[in-house]
Amino acid sequence: MMMARNTMRRVAISWQNGLITSIASATRSLHTTKDNHSCKIIMSPPLVSLDLPDIWSSNSNQYDSIPPQKFSNQQIATVIDGKSIAEDIRSSVTSEVRRMKESIGKVPGLAVIVVGQRRDSLIYVRNKIKACEEAGIKSMMTELPDECAEDEVLSALSNFNEDSSIHGILVQLPLPQHLDEGKILNALSLEKDVDGFHPLNMGNLAMRGREPLFIPCTPKGCIELLIRSGVEIIGKNAVVIGKSNIVGLPTSLLLQRHHATVSIVHALTKNPEQITREADIVITAAGVPNLVRGSWLKPGAVVLDVGTFPVDDPSSESGYRLMGDVYYEEAVELVSAITPVPGGVGPMTIAMLLSNTLDSAKRTYDFN
Amino acid sequence: MMMARNTMRRVAISWQNGLITSIASATRSLHTTKDNHSCKIIMSPPLVSLDLPDIWSSNSNQYDSIPPQKFSNQQIATVIDGKSIAEDIRSSVTSEVRRMKESIGKVPGLAVIVVGQRRDSLIYVRNKIKACEEAGIKSMMTELPDECAEDEVLSALSNFNEDSSIHGILVQLPLPQHLDEGKILNALSLEKDVDGFHPLNMGNLAMRGREPLFIPCTPKGCIELLIRSGVEIIGKNAVVIGKSNIVGLPTSLLLQRHHATVSIVHALTKNPEQITREADIVITAAGVPNLVRGSWLKPGAVVLDVGTFPVDDPSSESGYRLMGDVYYEEAVELVSAITPVPGGVGPMTIAMLLSNTLDSAKRTYDFN
Repeated sequence: MMMARNTMRRVAISWQNGLITSIASATRSLHTTKDNHSCKIIMSPPLVSLDLPDIWSSNSNQYDSIPPQKFSNQQIATVIDGKSIAEDIRSSVTSEVRRMKESIGKVPGLAVIVVGQRRDSLIYVRNKIKACEEAGIKSMMTELPDECAEDEVLSALSNFNEDSSIHGILVQLPLPQHLDEGKILNALSLEKDVDGFHPLNMGNLAMRGREPLFIPCTPKGCIELLIRSGVEIIGKNAVVIGKSNIVGLPTSLLLQRHHATVSIVHALTKNPEQITREADIVITAAGVPNLVRGSWLKPGAVVLDVGTFPVDDPSSESGYRLMGDVYYEEAVELVSAITPVPGGVGPMTIAMLLSNTLDSAKRTYDFN
Repeated sequence: MMMARNTMRRVAISWQNGLITSIASATRSLHTTKDNHSCKIIMSPPLVSLDLPDIWSSNSNQYDSIPPQKFSNQQIATVIDGKSIAEDIRSSVTSEVRRMKESIGKVPGLAVIVVGQRRDSLIYVRNKIKACEEAGIKSMMTELPDECAEDEVLSALSNFNEDSSIHGILVQLPLPQHLDEGKILNALSLEKDVDGFHPLNMGNLAMRGREPLFIPCTPKGCIELLIRSGVEIIGKNAVVIGKSNIVGLPTSLLLQRHHATVSIVHALTKNPEQITREADIVITAAGVPNLVRGSWLKPGAVVLDVGTFPVDDPSSESGYRLMGDVYYEEAVELVSAITPVPGGVGPMTIAMLLSNTLDSAKRTYDFN
C-alpha cells in the first residue's frame, strides 16, 4: 500500500465541487440512455453502473504542514485506549478457547487466503496469524501468487469450506484486479464468514428482526469501544464518513440497529463539515489523513477514527507512521472522547476476528 | 388496518422525550447483562434484542384540527403526478408483455399468497391482480385462513417456486403474528423475489459492486419518480423518515447507491425537524398523518410521501380517505415538488411490481 500510494502521500485535502459536477453530468447521461427495451420502461440505470470510485478530492498542500487551529471550547478528552480494551477481549477469548479445549478437546480454527505480495496485506495477515497463536486458535494460511487463476482461489476456499477443523475463513482484501471479488466471497461458506462480508450476512445486518451470523470486525469493534466507554448510542446523531463495504456500510447499519440517527457522508457529499458538526458520534473511515478538522466537530462529540494511512517517518523504526482521518491535535481539544491512531480502532479489528472465530466454533460444537 | 388502528385515528403527533429516555434505559441495561460466557467477551447484546417497535409518539390533539401555518417563502410546487407516470410505465409493460407473447409464446406470471382477511391486504392484493390482468401478466392467488399453519404457507410457496410459469411470487405482508415472516421469506425462490425483501437481495442492494436481482417496489418507484421529474440525486442531501424493511431501509440504500448523502430519521430521533430541514430530498414512510409540518421542510425541497393512513370520511364513496405523512397544505407552499396522497407514490408500487415481474420473466427466457 505504501508504494502504491506514494504519489498521494504529500497532499492535503480540500473539497472541489468540480469533481461532483463532472461526475453528476456523467451519471445524468446514464439516466437518459434509451438504447434497449428495458430502459424504455425504467429510467433508472442498472445499479452497478452507478458505482463510482470513492475519490476524496485533494489539493497540493502538504497535510502535515497545516498548523493546528486553536479552539476556545477546550475540554479534556478521554483518549479511548483501544489497545487495552482489545487486550482484555483477547484475554477473554484465550480463556474461552482454553475452556473449550479442556471441555471438548476442540479449538477454533481460522484459515486465511492471501493472494499476491501487497506489503500491507502481508503485515495484516501476519498480525492475524500471530494473534490466533496467542489465543490458542489454530490457524492455516494459503498464499497464492499475484497472477493466480480464479479457480485456484476458489479451490483453496473449497478446501477450507470442507475442513471441519476450520470455523472461520477470511480472504484478505483487496484482491488483485483480475479476480472477481464478489464471486470469490460468494463461494465462502456462510457459516465460516467471520469477516461478515457475504451479502446475506450484510442483508441480515441491515434488516430489522433478522440477525447476521457474523458482524464485520471493524464496525463491531467500534460499537464495542462505544459501549465499553459508556457512550450511549440510542437516539444519538451519528455520522459515518465513508461508505465502503468493509467499514462504512456495515458501521452505518450497525449504528441504526442500535437506534442512532445515522447520516452517511462520502466523497460526493457537498457539505460534509456542516453535517459532521451535528453529530454526537463520528466514525470516520475515509482513509484520508487529516480530513476531519476541528471545525468539523461539535464540542463534546465522541470520535472514532478508523483511518490508517502510512506516511514516511525516518524517526520511526519501521520507517513510517500511521495517520488517521482526524486532525488529532485539533479534535482532542474539542471532543469528549477520541481514539488515537494507532492504538484505537485498529487493535479492536483483530480482537473481533478472534471473537467471531470463537463464536463460530462454539456454534459448530454447540458449546456454551 | 382501519379497524385495528381505530384508536389511533384521532390523534396528532408530537415528540416526547420520555419515550426515548425509557427505552434508552431498558437498552442500556441489556449492555451490562453478563449472564453467560459470551457476554463476558462482547458487551454489545445480540442484535435482535435491540429491535424496538417503531412507535412514533403521539398526544391527544386532533391532527385534522390543526390549521395550516402560513409560510412567507411561497413558491409554486410541482405536484408529481405518480398516477400518470405509473400509467406510462404500465402501458410500456403491457407492450413488452405483448411483444414477448408474440415472439416466444410466453407471458410473465405472478403468484400472490395472502393469509387472513385483513381488509387493507385484500384491497392491495385485488389491485395487484387487476393490474396484472390489464398488463397481460398471468396471475395466481392462494388464500389461506388466518389461523393456518406455517407449513401450509411454506407448501403454497414451494408449489409456486417450482411452477415454471410463475416468475414472481409475493407474500402479502404483514402476516398473522403466529407465522415466522423471516422463515417464510427465506423459503421464497430468490429468482422470483419480485418484492426484493429477501436478505440476500437486500445485502446486494446495500453493497457497492453488487446488484440485487430485484429492487423493492416502493423505493424503486420513488427513485423513478425523482428521475422522471428531473430531480438530480447525486450529491444531494436526502432524508428518509422511517426505517422499515419494506420502505425506509431499501430507500436509504438505494439513495446511497445514487450517491445522495442520506440521513435516516426514525421514531427515536431527537431532532427530526432540524435534520429534515437540511434535506434537498425528503422521502417519508412513517405512516403517521401530518408528521411532517411545513417547519420541517427547506424551501425548494422535493418531497415524496409514502405514508397512507386511512381516516374516516363520510363524504367519500368508500367511507374513508387516505392521509400521508406530510401536512400537504403547508408543504405545498414551500417545496419545489411534492407527491400527493393518494395519486403519488402509491400507484408506482404496483407499476414497479409489474415491471419486476416482467424483468424476471425476461431473465428466465433470456428475452430482450
